[in-house]
Amino acid sequence: MKVMDGGICSVKGVRSYGIKPGKMGLAVIVAEGNAAGVFTRNKVIAAPLIVTRDALEKNGKLAAIIANSGNANAFTGEEGLADAREMASILAGKLGVDSDLIGVASTGVIGRKLDVGWIDDNIDEVVCSLTSSPQGNSKAARAIMTTDTVPKMAAVELSSGICIGGIAKGSGMIEPNMGTMLGFVYTDAEVDSDVLDSCLKKAVDKTFNMIVVDGDTSTNDMVLLTATGASEVRPDIDEFQQGLESILTDLAKQIAKDGEGATRLIEAQVRGAVSLEDARLVAKAIVRSPLVKSAIFGKDPNWGRVVAAAGYSGADVDQTKISLAFSNGSDSAVLVDNGKIISEDIEMLGKLSSIMGSPEVIIRVNLDVGDSSATAWGCDLTYDYVRINAEYTT
Amino acid sequence: MKVMDGGICSVKGVRSYGIKPGKMGLAVIVAEGNAAGVFTRNKVIAAPLIVTRDALEKNGKLAAIIANSGNANAFTGEEGLADAREMASILAGKLGVDSDLIGVASTGVIGRKLDVGWIDDNIDEVVCSLTSSPQGNSKAARAIMTTDTVPKMAAVELSSGICIGGIAKGSGMIEPNMGTMLGFVYTDAEVDSDVLDSCLKKAVDKTFNMIVVDGDTSTNDMVLLTATGASEVRPDIDEFQQGLESILTDLAKQIAKDGEGATRLIEAQVRGAVSLEDARLVAKAIVRSPLVKSAIFGKDPNWGRVVAAAGYSGADVDQTKISLAFSNGSDSAVLVDNGKIISEDIEMLGKLSSIMGSPEVIIRVNLDVGDSSATAWGCDLTYDYVRINAEYTT
Repeated sequence: MKVMDGGICSVKGVRSYGIKPGKMGLAVIVAEGNAAGVFTRNKVIAAPLIVTRDALEKNGKLAAIIANSGNANAFTGEEGLADAREMASILAGKLGVDSDLIGVASTGVIGRKLDVGWIDDNIDEVVCSLTSSPQGNSKAARAIMTTDTVPKMAAVELSSGICIGGIAKGSGMIEPNMGTMLGFVYTDAEVDSDVLDSCLKKAVDKTFNMIVVDGDTSTNDMVLLTATGASEVRPDIDEFQQGLESILTDLAKQIAKDGEGATRLIEAQVRGAVSLEDARLVAKAIVRSPLVKSAIFGKDPNWGRVVAAAGYSGADVDQTKISLAFSNGSDSAVLVDNGKIISEDIEMLGKLSSIMGSPEVIIRVNLDVGDSSATAWGCDLTYDYVRINAEYTT
Repeated sequence: MKVMDGGICSVKGVRSYGIKPGKMGLAVIVAEGNAAGVFTRNKVIAAPLIVTRDALEKNGKLAAIIANSGNANAFTGEEGLADAREMASILAGKLGVDSDLIGVASTGVIGRKLDVGWIDDNIDEVVCSLTSSPQGNSKAARAIMTTDTVPKMAAVELSSGICIGGIAKGSGMIEPNMGTMLGFVYTDAEVDSDVLDSCLKKAVDKTFNMIVVDGDTSTNDMVLLTATGASEVRPDIDEFQQGLESILTDLAKQIAKDGEGATRLIEAQVRGAVSLEDARLVAKAIVRSPLVKSAIFGKDPNWGRVVAAAGYSGADVDQTKISLAFSNGSDSAVLVDNGKIISEDIEMLGKLSSIMGSPEVIIRVNLDVGDSSATAWGCDLTYDYVRINAEYTT
C-alpha cells in the first residue's frame, strides 16, 4: 500500500471542483459507479441525507455529488426536502444524468432556509471548472469547510494498482456516530454496491465513529463511497478493506486534529478489554472527557482523569489490573502498572514533559481483563473551542 | 413546607464543624440514626465509598460522618482502603462509638496517598468545636469544598414539624449518576433505613442524577441520608419524599450553578416524551452538550443545537412535532412550534436578549409524542472551565 497525493483526484476518472467565495461554498464531484453511504444516527436528520439515502436505496449507484457549506438544510421541513431535491436536479440537468443518481450533502447552520438560488447562480462556475487534476480535489475539499481550518484529504494505491482516495470535512459537533462530518471517498476498483456497503460500515465503525471533538452528533453527517471500476480490477476484499480503513483513519485523524480550537491530537489506545464494544467504550470515554481534554491542553499527564473515564465508560474495568502510559510515539512513560501508581522520578518527569508538549499525545490503557482492543481519536479542549462556539451563531 | 436557614444544623440533634486551613479540609457531622446512601456508578470506586457502603450494609445506621477535601483517596489500592478505615477509626475513638457506624467521604485529587496523619493531627480541633449552631453547618459545608466557589446548603420544615436539611459540594466532574459530588442530608423524622433507602434513591434520580457540569462521573460521589428520629414523628411518606426532593433539588441546582467556570445556570424542561427515561435522556443531552453550553455562555439562543441534542439523545423524537422555547422564568420566547421555526420579530428579539442575559436560562422542549416529563440542570461552558481544568493538577 502506497500513500498518494491528490485525494479523490488520484482515483482514475474522478473530476471535481469547488468554490467558497464567502460563508456559502459549493462543491461538485463527478464519477459514476456503485456506491454506498453511512448516515448520521441523529433522529433529527437533515433533508439532503434523506435525498441521498433514497438515491442509494433505489440505484446502489451514484453519478455525482453536490455539496454545499454554510447552511445545513436541517430542520427545514418539507421545504428543505424540496430544496435538497432541487440541488440534485440542478446538477443532474448540467450533467445530463438522472437526478436520482446525485448525492446531496449540506453542512453549516441548522434551521435556516437554504438559498437554492445561490447554488443555481454558481453551479456553472463549478461544473465548467471540473478537473481530474489535484486542484479539483483541493478546491472541492476547501469548498465544504465550515469551521475547519485546513482541507482534509487522503489517498492510497494498493499493490493491485487500485486507488482509493477521499476528502472530508468536520471540526465541531463531532462525536461517535458521526459529527457534522462529510466524507466522500472514491475508488477505481470494481466492487458491487452491497460489498461496498459492508466494507464502508465496517471501516466507518473503526474510524469516523471513533473520533470525538465535543460529543455532539450532527444532523448532517454522511460518508459516501463510490467505486468507478475504471481500473477494471476486482480487488482482493481484505486488501481493499485495509486500504479503505487506512484512508478513513487518515481522514478521521485529520478531523480530530482540526477539532474546533484544538492544539493537539489525542489518541486513546485501549487493549485488554472483555469485548470490542468495551474497548471502544473506554477509548471513546477517554477522548470525550472534558477533564482529560482540558488536562491535555494544560500539558498535564492527569492519569487519574483517564482512569475515572475508563471507570464510568460502562465497560468492565478492574481497577487493580489497569496499566496506563502516555506516549508521543517515540517516548513513553508508564504511570500506572497493574493498578499500582509508578512514582515519577526525574527521568520520567523529563520524558513526560516532552510527551505532553508533543502535537500528538497517545494514551495507552491496558485493562487486562480480556483480549479486545480499540483506538479512538480526539483533541484537547481549549479557550478557542469556547470562543468559536460562543460566537458562532444560528 | 417552609424553607429554613441553617442546612443540616436546622435538624434537631445534628452537630457539625469543619476546617479548611489550606488544600486539605476536614468536616465532621455527628447525629445517630437510621441511614441510607447512594454511591457513584463509576466502576473505579474510591476507598471511602467501600468503607461507608459496608457500614450501611452492616448496620443500616450511622452515628457520624467524617469527610476530607483535597485528596479523593481514589485509586489508592489496599493502602487507601486501610487509610479510609483509619479515618473511621480515628473519629470513632474520639466519639466513643463503633467505627462501623462512621460514614467516610473524600474529595480531591485521584491517585495520591491520603495524609491520614494530617487528619489525626486536626481531628481534635474539629471534634472540640462541634456545634448545632448554624456556624457548624457552614463550617462543615466549607471544609468539603474543592473547586466550589460557594458552600451549598438547604433546609425545609414540613407541616408535621419535621425538618430536613443538607449540605453538598460539587463543581467539576459532575454528570448523571453522580459527579465528585458529596451530599449529606439529615432529618429528625422517624424513618426506617429501608424506607430511607428507597426515598433517597427516588429523590437522587430526579435531582443529583439530573445535573451535568462536564459529563465526567467521579469515583467518589456519595449522598448519605440519616434520620435521627429526634422529632419523634413518623412522617407521611409522600410529604417526606416531597420535602427530601425539595432539599435535593435545591442542592443539585446550587451545584450546577457553581459548575467550574460557570456564569449561568441552564435548566432543561422536557415534556411530551414517550417515557420518563426518554424525557431524562433528552433533558440531560441538552445540558450536557458542549455546543449548547458554549452558546449559552455566548448568550446565543441557538435552538438548532438544542434540537440536535434531542435528536442524538437516544430518545424517540419526531422533528415535525418539536416545540421549543427559551425562558428566564418571567419572559418566554417560543422559537419552534410543532416543528415550524417562528421568525424572530423585533419584540421577540428584545425578549430573547433579556432572557439570554439572565443568570438562569430555562430551555423548554415539548416533544409531543407522549406524556412523560423531566428536568435537568447544567451550566454554561466558559473560558474559566478550561482554565480551571487545564491548570488543576493531579
